[in-house]
Amino acid sequence: MIIQPILDLVAICAKKGIEHAILSPGSRCAPLTLAFARHPDIHSRTISDERSAAFIGLGMAQQLGQPVVLVCTSGSAALNYYPAVAEAFFQQVPLLILTADRPAEWIDQWDGQTIFQPEAYGKHVKKSFQFPDSFANDEQVWHAGRIVNEAINLAKQFPAGPVHINIPLREPFYPSENEAFNYPENPREFTTVSSQTQLSEESLKHIKNRLNDVSRILIVPGQQKPNSQLQSLLDQVSKNLNVVIVTDTISNLQSESTINLHDHWLGGENLHQSLTPDLVISFGKSVISKSLKQFLRRTGSSHWHIQPDGQAKDTYQQLTRILACSPVQFLNWLSQNLPIQNEKYYSRWMGLERTVQNTLAKTFNEVDFGEYSALHFLLPKIPTQTKLHLANSMAVRYVNFLGKRSQEIICNRGTSGIDGSNSTAVGCTFTTKEPVTLITGDMAFFYDRNAFWHNYSMPNLRIIILNNHAGGIFRLIDGPAKQPELEEFFETKQKLSANHLAEEFGFFYIKVKNHQELESALIDFYEPSIHPKILEIETSSPKNAEILKQVKEKIRLAIQ
Amino acid sequence: MIIQPILDLVAICAKKGIEHAILSPGSRCAPLTLAFARHPDIHSRTISDERSAAFIGLGMAQQLGQPVVLVCTSGSAALNYYPAVAEAFFQQVPLLILTADRPAEWIDQWDGQTIFQPEAYGKHVKKSFQFPDSFANDEQVWHAGRIVNEAINLAKQFPAGPVHINIPLREPFYPSENEAFNYPENPREFTTVSSQTQLSEESLKHIKNRLNDVSRILIVPGQQKPNSQLQSLLDQVSKNLNVVIVTDTISNLQSESTINLHDHWLGGENLHQSLTPDLVISFGKSVISKSLKQFLRRTGSSHWHIQPDGQAKDTYQQLTRILACSPVQFLNWLSQNLPIQNEKYYSRWMGLERTVQNTLAKTFNEVDFGEYSALHFLLPKIPTQTKLHLANSMAVRYVNFLGKRSQEIICNRGTSGIDGSNSTAVGCTFTTKEPVTLITGDMAFFYDRNAFWHNYSMPNLRIIILNNHAGGIFRLIDGPAKQPELEEFFETKQKLSANHLAEEFGFFYIKVKNHQELESALIDFYEPSIHPKILEIETSSPKNAEILKQVKEKIRLAIQ
Repeated sequence: MIIQPILDLVAICAKKGIEHAILSPGSRCAPLTLAFARHPDIHSRTISDERSAAFIGLGMAQQLGQPVVLVCTSGSAALNYYPAVAEAFFQQVPLLILTADRPAEWIDQWDGQTIFQPEAYGKHVKKSFQFPDSFANDEQVWHAGRIVNEAINLAKQFPAGPVHINIPLREPFYPSENEAFNYPENPREFTTVSSQTQLSEESLKHIKNRLNDVSRILIVPGQQKPNSQLQSLLDQVSKNLNVVIVTDTISNLQSESTINLHDHWLGGENLHQSLTPDLVISFGKSVISKSLKQFLRRTGSSHWHIQPDGQAKDTYQQLTRILACSPVQFLNWLSQNLPIQNEKYYSRWMGLERTVQNTLAKTFNEVDFGEYSALHFLLPKIPTQTKLHLANSMAVRYVNFLGKRSQEIICNRGTSGIDGSNSTAVGCTFTTKEPVTLITGDMAFFYDRNAFWHNYSMPNLRIIILNNHAGGIFRLIDGPAKQPELEEFFETKQKLSANHLAEEFGFFYIKVKNHQELESALIDFYEPSIHPKILEIETSSPKNAEILKQVKEKIRLAIQ
Repeated sequence: MIIQPILDLVAICAKKGIEHAILSPGSRCAPLTLAFARHPDIHSRTISDERSAAFIGLGMAQQLGQPVVLVCTSGSAALNYYPAVAEAFFQQVPLLILTADRPAEWIDQWDGQTIFQPEAYGKHVKKSFQFPDSFANDEQVWHAGRIVNEAINLAKQFPAGPVHINIPLREPFYPSENEAFNYPENPREFTTVSSQTQLSEESLKHIKNRLNDVSRILIVPGQQKPNSQLQSLLDQVSKNLNVVIVTDTISNLQSESTINLHDHWLGGENLHQSLTPDLVISFGKSVISKSLKQFLRRTGSSHWHIQPDGQAKDTYQQLTRILACSPVQFLNWLSQNLPIQNEKYYSRWMGLERTVQNTLAKTFNEVDFGEYSALHFLLPKIPTQTKLHLANSMAVRYVNFLGKRSQEIICNRGTSGIDGSNSTAVGCTFTTKEPVTLITGDMAFFYDRNAFWHNYSMPNLRIIILNNHAGGIFRLIDGPAKQPELEEFFETKQKLSANHLAEEFGFFYIKVKNHQELESALIDFYEPSIHPKILEIETSSPKNAEILKQVKEKIRLAIQ
């Protein structure tokens, strides 16, 4: 018999708008599995490797803006979720993690497949609940329902994130023959009515006074989803008020009015003075560009961070003020209250941006074929409506170097791991019929190959692998490149190509080694297909290092 | 520059007998990587997927009986270790886990690749240390050295287990050109002198009195390494004193004098009375057989558990006495002090064992080809000196059904996960030139395929895959087999064969689908080779379920 509180749990999920569950096989979790699989309003899929399962859930929740449910059995299954749970926590993606467990009396008694599951995710979940393991008393039924409501509310509430319910279950795990699943039609629900923090008139007056003292403002948005309202407000303050907007690719806020190519040159010491702002305003989450971070850490400017819940990080070591309101609200106010800023300062930034843009265009006509030049060529050919997933570490850096994109950019920058990029992209394909493109390096690609180990179709998935047979980033940064251990212990040279994997999973596959092959491969890469397609760009790691150096040098000379 | 405390750390490891490190690539961990890679007495290998890396370390430490060092970079890398860390904790295998981290001031500041690493493994390590992140004061240097000593001592001390040191590191991570690595010749070391708990004369007198009241003793060893001293003591008390020894395959203590085939029939209700012991004595860790556990839970007998540190689990719900001494010591005393036990009782068990043995032999002449019959045929052909790794869940169960083995049996029964069986076996190949054989199902095999993603040779690895294209166990147990969700959500039907993987990694590969093919494949399977060999036995999941049912029924009839 499946106990009623488990059916109630699933009914509450459905009532609260949850539409998708990713289940991993197991016996202890069978009541949850069956209750989710049989619910008419929830679409369940099964993924065997829990590490991938959780990243797939993350990839779905990123798009849906709704919690996705994860269900796994007891034991180390729950631990395999952990990398994705941490990523979801720092990337603020809602997940409802349901881990089946043995009841307390059987923990640590050498009776197979138990670990210490309560609180297993430490500080990497918004909260961890323990489901009751007995329902002899009505108050325990109330407790169970309350936990589910609290957990889902919390997962959704800003900043969204993963919430864990550990669920001890006793045998029997399976329904008897012809057992009806009586989901309650109207399970008890309580909701959090969404609210907004707003700056008071008095605060705004104070801020307005403060703004009279500044003439050089830099706005630095961190990682976030595309937001057209924000985008147009930023364009407005840039064009009308000479505010400089410096955007990394993961901000999804790049435009003609923003600085997008800073990562190439911002480290240059002699430019520093003339670019120093009076005030830095940021919102969103992290940025990628190390040179941008280093630049901001040296400015000595004031730094205001906008975040509705009043929590901010001091990423640039200059934080002076936290504005507890929404970025749209503040920028809207700013656009109406900020005096026009220093034009010379604005032009200095915009001029540099144009110079770098022109230099880049010219330079790529001259450099050899490598992953950088390949990306420069192919990025404009990716359809606008594609969801563009970028893996850590070099894929996202290259795209960031290459400036403005029109696609939505998605990257696991919460923990910046390479462990779940394939799976996150796979999750994305479950939410859209538009193309989903993943650009990844060989290390990230092979690391997470179990992303493809399931029976669901992903006709819209396109994978571009930059295969230099190594963790090429280690040759691109100074320290390791000089060590005799470079190839074995840093790059970890690996000889695989994706052809075997493609054959194994029935993906279309094409490998290119030069510009002509790339050009011809792209002709029908985005044509509809019933299977995912892999485009593998094979390059040499030392050559890639050389190209990056060449490009950097050209830009250095151009902006001198 | 590599800071001296990191060089000291590595020197202390070497001085304390650590000979192997598994490194995973990263930049934050570069000082550790280089310090281990360059130390003349430590053999370092690099494995890119941290989940596999940690299980490989576990597989090595199991054989070496010495801690193996794991080194990873900051961020989710540490979390990918977790499944193996939990396995090591419950299986009591020593690991020294060194996770590089950012210094405290940079945690949770949106500055890439940070999570909350201190205490990340919760209760699944013996202890978690935080390495100093500044050495401005001499006492911090003392602290660092003390932590390394404490951690290694603790990892080795009974019961052995994983110990974690989180190591915050600041840039620069790389040595300058021609920088010498000055490992101290004689780093400060303190050791724990090993000791033994012993039962007092008085306790033994008391126990001897208690033993006069019993005439039916059952000894049930749990999982442990082979131990010839224990083996001969058990044989002695069985043969000379009519003590019944019931051994699962993971006890590594099976012999002609022990009961090894109990898993086939012990569930039978009507046998219960005549087999009930007066006293159960156990030692070691877990047992596999669910019917053995269920039987012991119903006996109402006294249960004594022998463990040197006086900690015991109440696995059989009958625990009455914990004997804080070594099993060898107690069995030695027992062999000299126990009166001869009830012969009828002893014969009842031994008779059943013989009946089942004969029935099995006959039955396998009659049943169809399937994974069970294939294993019955091939197990005797595996060389005696092979290290025999068994994956969860069906592989180890089948081998347990099939009785006495002469090989060392290794299985991840700490958490009983399928997540690291390949890697554990790969780790084993790094410690021996003898054959290492892994018997695994298709789910466990594909789950952990990254075990093979490295450049180290494993000529002695032999893999036998029972590929029924599903998690076949779910068809073999009653509950899920009857659900319409069986194939999608429990078995998670998967169509892969290992041929692509074999080609990708350069393994020899042969697939068999019937007895003749199996027979011919085995002829040279154990011939020396420069590459690992895979023998894939393809069977159908429903057929396997049928065979198991057939065999069980024959045995039921035979022992009626």
